[in-house]
Amino acid sequence: MEIPEKSIRIGFSKIKSEFFRILSSIGFLETDAEKCAEIFTMNCADGVNSHGINRFPRFIRNIREGIVKPEAVPSFVHSFGSLEQWDGNLGAGPLNASFATERAMGIAAENGIGLVALRNTNHWMRGGTYGWQAAKKGFAFICWTNTCPNMPAWGAIDPRIGNNPFVIAVPYQDEAIVIDFAMSQYSYGKMESLKSDSKKLPYPGGYNKKGQITDDPGEILETWRVLPAGYWKGAGLSLLLDILATILSGGLSTHQIRTCSSEHSVSQVFIAFNISKLYNFPTIDASINQIIDDLHKSVPVDPSAKIRYPGENVLRTRKENLEKGIPVNRLAWERIISM
Amino acid sequence: MEIPEKSIRIGFSKIKSEFFRILSSIGFLETDAEKCAEIFTMNCADGVNSHGINRFPRFIRNIREGIVKPEAVPSFVHSFGSLEQWDGNLGAGPLNASFATERAMGIAAENGIGLVALRNTNHWMRGGTYGWQAAKKGFAFICWTNTCPNMPAWGAIDPRIGNNPFVIAVPYQDEAIVIDFAMSQYSYGKMESLKSDSKKLPYPGGYNKKGQITDDPGEILETWRVLPAGYWKGAGLSLLLDILATILSGGLSTHQIRTCSSEHSVSQVFIAFNISKLYNFPTIDASINQIIDDLHKSVPVDPSAKIRYPGENVLRTRKENLEKGIPVNRLAWERIISM
Repeated sequence: MEIPEKSIRIGFSKIKSEFFRILSSIGFLETDAEKCAEIFTMNCADGVNSHGINRFPRFIRNIREGIVKPEAVPSFVHSFGSLEQWDGNLGAGPLNASFATERAMGIAAENGIGLVALRNTNHWMRGGTYGWQAAKKGFAFICWTNTCPNMPAWGAIDPRIGNNPFVIAVPYQDEAIVIDFAMSQYSYGKMESLKSDSKKLPYPGGYNKKGQITDDPGEILETWRVLPAGYWKGAGLSLLLDILATILSGGLSTHQIRTCSSEHSVSQVFIAFNISKLYNFPTIDASINQIIDDLHKSVPVDPSAKIRYPGENVLRTRKENLEKGIPVNRLAWERIISM
Repeated sequence: MEIPEKSIRIGFSKIKSEFFRILSSIGFLETDAEKCAEIFTMNCADGVNSHGINRFPRFIRNIREGIVKPEAVPSFVHSFGSLEQWDGNLGAGPLNASFATERAMGIAAENGIGLVALRNTNHWMRGGTYGWQAAKKGFAFICWTNTCPNMPAWGAIDPRIGNNPFVIAVPYQDEAIVIDFAMSQYSYGKMESLKSDSKKLPYPGGYNKKGQITDDPGEILETWRVLPAGYWKGAGLSLLLDILATILSGGLSTHQIRTCSSEHSVSQVFIAFNISKLYNFPTIDASINQIIDDLHKSVPVDPSAKIRYPGENVLRTRKENLEKGIPVNRLAWERIISM
């Protein structure tokens, strides 16, 4: 696949070692710097630079500002049965989320299901990371996070609800099927990227200053009036995910996370399902294979296209990027190596 | 509120007693006929006649066809920790779903979370029913069902995935906040109802025979090419919900439920969260109140409108209909009393 004009391919280990160098210099223990660098680099390898190399400088700035605390580790708050509540102590979002995912699997190993609700944590970067983590270990998995208020309720003008990304993952052929989506039709990262390339959105994604629906990402970024995915459906789901994250964790809800420019102290939920203990476990692989085989038989609108499951393109991208190097913006890379 | 021209208002107990009479005559035990009549009537009271009086004759036909078995009760299959698998034995969908909801709460009462996965069950009518049931008893709750293939995958022409309704509910001021939505932007029931009134959809909802996107419900009903809510997002979520329902229950997946005209043997998942055992339980009510208060402060696009939470309109409708009688189509009512 061709890479964008301003991009260059850099090897996985080279990017990761730069991230590791910077993280080690800013207060992370070696093992934490290693884990965090791995997650950021993997996001790049999977084609999600918006939550990889492009976001990394902001992550480091948040640490310098004291919003993200590199030395913090999650602390246990309370448990009842299959349900545990933890405090993220404002530590690094990816490390806290990865810990919570592991812990949810630990509970599920014993109890069939494990739920970890995490308060006072930070932006987890790419939610899919934790879906892949759990599914690769054989668990079915659901997780979500709340965010700052970055989307209006349905029928409203002012942003009061979050885009609250939601993730579902299941194991599939030693890899995973992972859906990872925000409640807005387009992420702010996607709109910024298309705007800088002077491109339009494929479908209308929000409103301009005149209150007209538009596919111009620049106009939407001026108003923050993004369109919820599925209109009233995405807006309603966002509200319920925020309520659940808030009450299950005892943490802040979207309306309490007022500053989007330095969003912190979000609430998250991680649920692992131990499918290895189901009566039908021996047939689960075949069952998922059949579902995907049927999906692949879909008649595409574009005869040259192929219908894919969520995560299928990620696998192809990852494979290519691990072989040929990861395409990153040249300026973004120069910024990293000069940090 | 004014009611449609062809409608009349009938009292709750009058409708319920007609449903009870018919259900009792077709093989249901008295207690089951009572429960089933209550659910169908409550759906009418909540303004969801499409899954109440309008759907009731088809439900009875499905019993006569042997697709829905009035004498069947769910049987236990397997359990591990907080997770139980049950077989619906092709019993009445609403009774099976209500039983599974109760059982999920029973497990959660002891284990913090309770999951019941149900195979071989039937259409549960309105998913919100079970959300209200659990939330009114103080539980947070998630449930979903798969369906026959009634929606194309994203980018495809032929229907191979389901619209798989998904429900989240939380307790709120002795009532509930409940979101209940299908993965298609509009339900088939909604489109049929607008078509019969010669009305357009508020937003495009699918494709016509020429492959053009359209807001004409009649044209969409000809093609079955409904638009997923949020485009690729609703389509992807539909696939993952089907996979989870299939593997957790050991039941059929959407591609195995080929006949939409007599859809049966679907798979469902019910998860109850025992929030009364959380460390922050004493502050949960206040926390949800604050979230809803903030939502209500939204600036509406239409100055005369008010921004509402999912379920808020249902409560108003229910109150009015319980006081004044439930508006039902005159012909639909005549059909019921003649059954």
